[in-house]
Amino acid sequence: MDGVIQTSAPATVRRRIPRAQREELMLDAAERVFGEHGFRGASMDEIAVHSGITKAMLYEYFESKEGLFQATIERVRSRLFAVIQDAVAQLPPGPARMSAFSRTYFDWLDANRGQGWMLYGGASEGVADEMRMRNAEAIAEILEAGGAGDVRERRRGMVLTQSLVGAGEQVGRWWLREPGVSKADVIRDFDVIAGAMIAAAGR
Amino acid sequence: MDGVIQTSAPATVRRRIPRAQREELMLDAAERVFGEHGFRGASMDEIAVHSGITKAMLYEYFESKEGLFQATIERVRSRLFAVIQDAVAQLPPGPARMSAFSRTYFDWLDANRGQGWMLYGGASEGVADEMRMRNAEAIAEILEAGGAGDVRERRRGMVLTQSLVGAGEQVGRWWLREPGVSKADVIRDFDVIAGAMIAAAGR
Repeated sequence: MDGVIQTSAPATVRRRIPRAQREELMLDAAERVFGEHGFRGASMDEIAVHSGITKAMLYEYFESKEGLFQATIERVRSRLFAVIQDAVAQLPPGPARMSAFSRTYFDWLDANRGQGWMLYGGASEGVADEMRMRNAEAIAEILEAGGAGDVRERRRGMVLTQSLVGAGEQVGRWWLREPGVSKADVIRDFDVIAGAMIAAAGR
Repeated sequence: MDGVIQTSAPATVRRRIPRAQREELMLDAAERVFGEHGFRGASMDEIAVHSGITKAMLYEYFESKEGLFQATIERVRSRLFAVIQDAVAQLPPGPARMSAFSRTYFDWLDANRGQGWMLYGGASEGVADEMRMRNAEAIAEILEAGGAGDVRERRRGMVLTQSLVGAGEQVGRWWLREPGVSKADVIRDFDVIAGAMIAAAGR
């Protein structure tokens, strides 16, 4: 299989692709194949074929299937947060931002329903935890809940952002399996609850 | 290894142990061994030795290491909720119960720090999700948030209980890795946030 790929994309050509661009090609293929088959079901052979890059190169860049999966869900995660950042940029910090956040998040869940990398898929606990910590940092930035205040306020801000990460993840997971609950309804309910959390923490 | 166990506990003796009691012996050993080594690190051989029951019997009862792990974390989970039920039984539904809930939960996290089955350890997504659904049902019972009300209220009650499950899990996970945050502080902060969630959902 590697032979086929090398014939269609000789080494001399491949070397001219900048590293970052080649990485994107690999991640595009990984996102598609992990999305379709999940972590366990996906094969590095299939990802190599779809990316047009050798399997050896995949391992050189990402070390293992786990490493490639982690990079894939990290890219998915950071793209979602970039969209969220755009959605909240013009709004004042606090509940208004959380509301835009909720809408963007549930739209994203809906659009990516059934993807094998969704909500960390079969990622190891360590990888999922790393993603959750990054989500908490991103939420702290959006709410501006991280920096200011005394020790007590900063600590409460952290409990708040961790609570929002956990609640958002679990409500999302639940909603994806509840065909009877409309997107508008889950957004409204989550927004009321998340808004109250933010208000209670004094953000 | 099976031979050694069979010599010390002959089949005629083992058959006299009632099924439920034998299951408890296996789960006691599993809890200890998974607790110490985690899901991946634990071996069925070691669990068999500690339970004084053959490995063949372990497989007969639980089918696989995954099945035994699932039964182990389910027993841990249901014991925690039994303790929580006791703690809240004399209190009116709503924030007072949530407060007792928080105290009991963080005490439990503290007492079981480092156990390999903690917060579903390396359980598969399917198993962890099943546990989360049971937690949500238990919380709905405690808050009496499940049954009454019209469709809209019941739906909001479900979003609330799922939010509490996710927030509690994530704050617990975060707190176990934050040596600078005292138990009293995390309980107080989580209580303020969870109390606001419950009040906002009209419970």
